Amino acid sequence: MKHIYFDYAATSPTDPDVVKVMEPYFYEKYGNASSPHALGREAQNALEQAREVLAGFIGAKPEEIVFTSGATEANNQAIFGVARANANKGRHLVISAVEHHSVHEPADFLETQGFKVTYVPADENGVIHPQVVADAITNETILIAIMHASNEIGTIQPVVKIAEIAKGKNIPFLVDAVQTVGHIPVNVKELGADLLSLSAHKFYGPKGIGALYIRKGTKLGSYLLGGDQERGRRASTQNIPGAVGLAKAVALCQENMIEEMKTQQTYRDRLLAEIPQKISGVKINGHLHQRLPNNAHFSFQGVEGESLLMNLDMNGICASMGSACTSGAMEASRVLKAIGLEDDLAYGALRITLGRWSTEEHIERLLEVLPSAVEGLRL
Amino acid sequence: MKHIYFDYAATSPTDPDVVKVMEPYFYEKYGNASSPHALGREAQNALEQAREVLAGFIGAKPEEIVFTSGATEANNQAIFGVARANANKGRHLVISAVEHHSVHEPADFLETQGFKVTYVPADENGVIHPQVVADAITNETILIAIMHASNEIGTIQPVVKIAEIAKGKNIPFLVDAVQTVGHIPVNVKELGADLLSLSAHKFYGPKGIGALYIRKGTKLGSYLLGGDQERGRRASTQNIPGAVGLAKAVALCQENMIEEMKTQQTYRDRLLAEIPQKISGVKINGHLHQRLPNNAHFSFQGVEGESLLMNLDMNGICASMGSACTSGAMEASRVLKAIGLEDDLAYGALRITLGRWSTEEHIERLLEVLPSAVEGLRL
Repeated sequence: MKHIYFDYAATSPTDPDVVKVMEPYFYEKYGNASSPHALGREAQNALEQAREVLAGFIGAKPEEIVFTSGATEANNQAIFGVARANANKGRHLVISAVEHHSVHEPADFLETQGFKVTYVPADENGVIHPQVVADAITNETILIAIMHASNEIGTIQPVVKIAEIAKGKNIPFLVDAVQTVGHIPVNVKELGADLLSLSAHKFYGPKGIGALYIRKGTKLGSYLLGGDQERGRRASTQNIPGAVGLAKAVALCQENMIEEMKTQQTYRDRLLAEIPQKISGVKINGHLHQRLPNNAHFSFQGVEGESLLMNLDMNGICASMGSACTSGAMEASRVLKAIGLEDDLAYGALRITLGRWSTEEHIERLLEVLPSAVEGLRL
Repeated sequence: MKHIYFDYAATSPTDPDVVKVMEPYFYEKYGNASSPHALGREAQNALEQAREVLAGFIGAKPEEIVFTSGATEANNQAIFGVARANANKGRHLVISAVEHHSVHEPADFLETQGFKVTYVPADENGVIHPQVVADAITNETILIAIMHASNEIGTIQPVVKIAEIAKGKNIPFLVDAVQTVGHIPVNVKELGADLLSLSAHKFYGPKGIGALYIRKGTKLGSYLLGGDQERGRRASTQNIPGAVGLAKAVALCQENMIEEMKTQQTYRDRLLAEIPQKISGVKINGHLHQRLPNNAHFSFQGVEGESLLMNLDMNGICASMGSACTSGAMEASRVLKAIGLEDDLAYGALRITLGRWSTEEHIERLLEVLPSAVEGLRL
């Protein structure tokens, strides 16, 4: 790889071993999983095997997995699906102020349709406190959505405790686990999630495929309407190469995750320790310990984040300020505002996210380049 | 290929040349198109190039193309999008009785939300007559949806004339072109479509990617809500390998389509001529001339279609009764009922669809196997 890539939270390379297992499903085993013949059955078998692999990895049953085009669709289906299925019970949602756009925007849309949404605040480390969630619940609440870990600042949320609260009130609980599946252990039963969304391209699988876990008994309709695929819970011809690739990506994570966590955490901790030593006017964003092993997030006083990225880019270093999904927008991150950052620090953000192909040399190069880049922009 | 494949309308093999151009976008050029660095720009460029290729092929402008996960999503976005954007103008839709499920089901859903839907009948050849569409329009009509060609019986609709009617009344017109793009010429301007849906895996591209053409000026919101991708018209990390593959599939069709149409039409006409000669009690479904060059559709009296498929399958021949999207369901096809078939003929259906790798030997093998298969089931 010619670039030094520090943007794994935006997307990851598809592991070459993943691409290899996908290949036969393009030209040789190309059947439509719904077709009533040998090629159809072959596709169907591959799909169900992929479903089993994913289910096994996250502690679910295969029939609780719906393959989607990605996490955005999974989050949309979860939120709109629960809202439709439960609108007669109540019209109130509790989501955190630091959710991903694909949770935030559907909730915003529901507000235009007569629903009410409480945006639970985060503390200065980005933590959503269970008691604050509990306090936000009303008799009308039909969904609680709290992400497993922040895609921007890497804070891991106390999901287990929030799940207990949700369960006690019999309210469906959606966990956006896009940043955690394949990166730290994710088990739907241990987390207590009723709904959980994930995306293959965040853990070395292909783009264009993800999944929604739907705990048995959770009322949820289809969001894409049409054919009877996915047991009637998601219409559209199933993406077999995608599902097979997702499953291989899962298998590779199963094999390597613990080791990778250790390596990445070592790198991360070096960045968290050395960057503030080498550069003045730095703030580390997100919780210091309760954070993703692959995420380091900083704010630099008096530095335009976009200029810093451009400078790093010219040095062959790929990083970001936060979410890629809105990086076209010139606004400060909603998440950084939610944890109380002033504009200066919010605009001076840098997100470093690590992954399978991160090396010590990458870290050293960043530590070499970053100080002068920051200082140069402060002149 | 070890199977004789006659189910191209369900899905097609991804052309090996398509797979080849996709490959670098998995592990080498893996950036997120929204990311602010070299890898992100590389992805963005690939995406916009793919958009230009597709736009050029169907006579659109690049900014009128939104990539989706497939045609189901495209149809859902078109129908729900138009309904949301125009609900204050009116709440009536005109769709044909032979539309694909991904058009039919969203319309059905809107009926539960206070919309009215007129299902325009087809004649015995599956043709939707423009005058019948014109008669169905009311002052409340906000969308007309008529497919370009039937996925089941292959009838090509008089879309141009219907478009004129829609335009005269200033009503958005959706054309589901899933079965025609890459198979017969499709030009959005010549057709007069305001919205047009397509899916790559139907024309030798990969599964999991499609597109919605949105004529400039057509009011339409996002269906997947979240990030700002696709100019704010479709959230979700863009599927770069998919888009690149779709574009290559388009380029191959551009090169080969006219030739392939001729070849497939010859095969088709041979089937339409010889099967009724060799087998008694056969009905050809769909229009004889105004039909897809790659579709031959029959009904056999006194034959259970599923048993016939099983028999063909044991002979290494992959065919279908109709839409793969509901082939799990044991109901007779809605489309065959709509063209007036009695149960006996509707249950005895056989759809043969041809494609790039169909050969004369395949046709001969089918003509050899089919008569005894049908007769055997009539005993």
